[in-house]
Amino acid sequence: MDTKEKYVPGLAGVVAAETTISFLDTEQEKIIIRGHELIELSQQHDYLEIAHLLLEGTLPDSNEKTNLQEKLNGEYDIPQNVLKILELLSENTHPMDALRTGLSALSGYDNDLDNRSSEVNKQRAYRLLGKLPAITVNSYRLINGQEAVQPDQNLSYSANFLYMITGEKPEDWQTEIFDRSLLLYSEHEMPNSTFTARVIASTNADLYGALTGGVASLKGNLHGGANEAVMYMLNEVKSAAAFEELLMKKLSQKEKIMGFGHRVYMKKMDPRALVMKQSLKELCDKKGDHTLLEMCEAGEKVMREEKGLYPNLDYYAAPVYWMLGIPIGLYTPIFFSARTAGLCAHVIEQHENNRLFRPRVNYVGNSY
Amino acid sequence: MDTKEKYVPGLAGVVAAETTISFLDTEQEKIIIRGHELIELSQQHDYLEIAHLLLEGTLPDSNEKTNLQEKLNGEYDIPQNVLKILELLSENTHPMDALRTGLSALSGYDNDLDNRSSEVNKQRAYRLLGKLPAITVNSYRLINGQEAVQPDQNLSYSANFLYMITGEKPEDWQTEIFDRSLLLYSEHEMPNSTFTARVIASTNADLYGALTGGVASLKGNLHGGANEAVMYMLNEVKSAAAFEELLMKKLSQKEKIMGFGHRVYMKKMDPRALVMKQSLKELCDKKGDHTLLEMCEAGEKVMREEKGLYPNLDYYAAPVYWMLGIPIGLYTPIFFSARTAGLCAHVIEQHENNRLFRPRVNYVGNSY
Repeated sequence: MDTKEKYVPGLAGVVAAETTISFLDTEQEKIIIRGHELIELSQQHDYLEIAHLLLEGTLPDSNEKTNLQEKLNGEYDIPQNVLKILELLSENTHPMDALRTGLSALSGYDNDLDNRSSEVNKQRAYRLLGKLPAITVNSYRLINGQEAVQPDQNLSYSANFLYMITGEKPEDWQTEIFDRSLLLYSEHEMPNSTFTARVIASTNADLYGALTGGVASLKGNLHGGANEAVMYMLNEVKSAAAFEELLMKKLSQKEKIMGFGHRVYMKKMDPRALVMKQSLKELCDKKGDHTLLEMCEAGEKVMREEKGLYPNLDYYAAPVYWMLGIPIGLYTPIFFSARTAGLCAHVIEQHENNRLFRPRVNYVGNSY
Repeated sequence: MDTKEKYVPGLAGVVAAETTISFLDTEQEKIIIRGHELIELSQQHDYLEIAHLLLEGTLPDSNEKTNLQEKLNGEYDIPQNVLKILELLSENTHPMDALRTGLSALSGYDNDLDNRSSEVNKQRAYRLLGKLPAITVNSYRLINGQEAVQPDQNLSYSANFLYMITGEKPEDWQTEIFDRSLLLYSEHEMPNSTFTARVIASTNADLYGALTGGVASLKGNLHGGANEAVMYMLNEVKSAAAFEELLMKKLSQKEKIMGFGHRVYMKKMDPRALVMKQSLKELCDKKGDHTLLEMCEAGEKVMREEKGLYPNLDYYAAPVYWMLGIPIGLYTPIFFSARTAGLCAHVIEQHENNRLFRPRVNYVGNSY
């Protein structure tokens, strides 16, 4: 090998996998999930149906949907010892690190861990999907000195998730908004966390390991960590005018503004952000207070005019979660939880047709 | 982007990073670490000196060496709560999964977790390096129902590590052989686990997350898991003739034989395997029993003649660890522990000059 091969930092534009799962069609500005458009799916289907689409390749009929909900209901609980492990974590633990540790500990409860068949991987994925809300919420609660909360098997997936987060049985319209956010976060081609999961799975490592790596990746503020960064920024001020001023100041100080731009969309608007913005509007209408929407729109304008950048999903997910009463520390863990459906689909696909990821380097160090 | 871009499965031969850390020069058959040849280093230096070389860029002088050993001595202990967490893991937990969970839990004890400066990352790396033996050994012991063992601050890094594993203060020659194995495992350019760690770090995630992903990757039997697979295979029989027969049978049944071949070396011998084979010979000489060496040589001959494949490091590390009295379940965790030095160097380099890893895909799914 020539020591000075072509090098593309961050593998930008480099094809790293062949997939039937999803594709960002930047020319037509469509997010494709197994042949369907994500935005259309978000208007007619819910998160569990998309999880079925991701894992089985088809949208479920009503029987399949019922079976899936029942299967997940039976998986809401997590082992007592995992709760005890989460309780023992240092109180300074970051919520994503707590989630990472809890997920990692789960592998010891899988009786067929060495089996990589698609059928077993799929059942493993459903078990994980069922348990993610309890791990996500309780890892956050326990490092914050709160008591663990029990899932409610009588609630739908998203209603139970939101109930565990807020402690209150949600209204249907709240569940719908939350569910739509999970759906929008469920899958997005080959972002860093999905790539991480596939790279790990390619050593023939199992789903738990691949997902644990996925949590580690998603924590970074150049990836999933952006949504909480947006909310901290919105919380610095109280009006659209003040937010505009804040952004102008940050821009003049050359600070990176989270929630804008995306490697793949480049200068175009993330279509998911548009749907999420609609959810924010609904929430503001219900509350009769449009401050957050106005602030976000002001920020959108500043960034478009000053930098030619458009908001991404995280930018509008943050105020939506805020208005649903979700603690900021849970934004990124919820993103991960939603993305589990897509990550599992990718790990299964990687195991089905595997080739170990093992790239090379350009050595630019001391001569020898 | 054209939807049918060139796709190289597993990114074989694709350059994914520019690095000053290491390079596999396959033409000259040399493993280069910061301008030095690894095999030469293994004859004149020990593991800690190589860790210094990896993290600081230079071999330590005698003062620096003393300071490094003292620094690590002060870091041998791990928090009591991490031990309790390991104790709570399911008894069915795989040793690598236990290590993954323990390492993940450590992040909560870092008071400067958001700091990505090279200086802070380096101190973090030394702390982790110091703690790895205690996490590695105790995660294994506690899932196997044994009591935790305390490190001995009076022993050198490798002597303490081997002492914690076997429960006996090692002889100097045993420590030397073990130390050399750690040195040989310390760094190897861009294998899957190193790539995983850099991919994760590129989201601006921290060292703990990157290493946690690294453990998950190294567990796979197409990567680190190979060394324990080799030992299980050697243990199936008791003589060179029987091992030859076993391999011929496995080959006729088209089973994959672990411990042979390597993506990058291809048909050439892994120079690290030669050094490790020498260690095996030393151990056999001391014991006055050359059975394992003869078995390994018989296997080497079969694979060369039948498949044109040569042994890699794992093939000879397995019998060396066996003869040092190391439990098989610890082989891969020890590999990870040794590789921590290299992984930390790569994460630091990634943070110093970062570009988010975010490749693309070829979509071959349903049309839309």
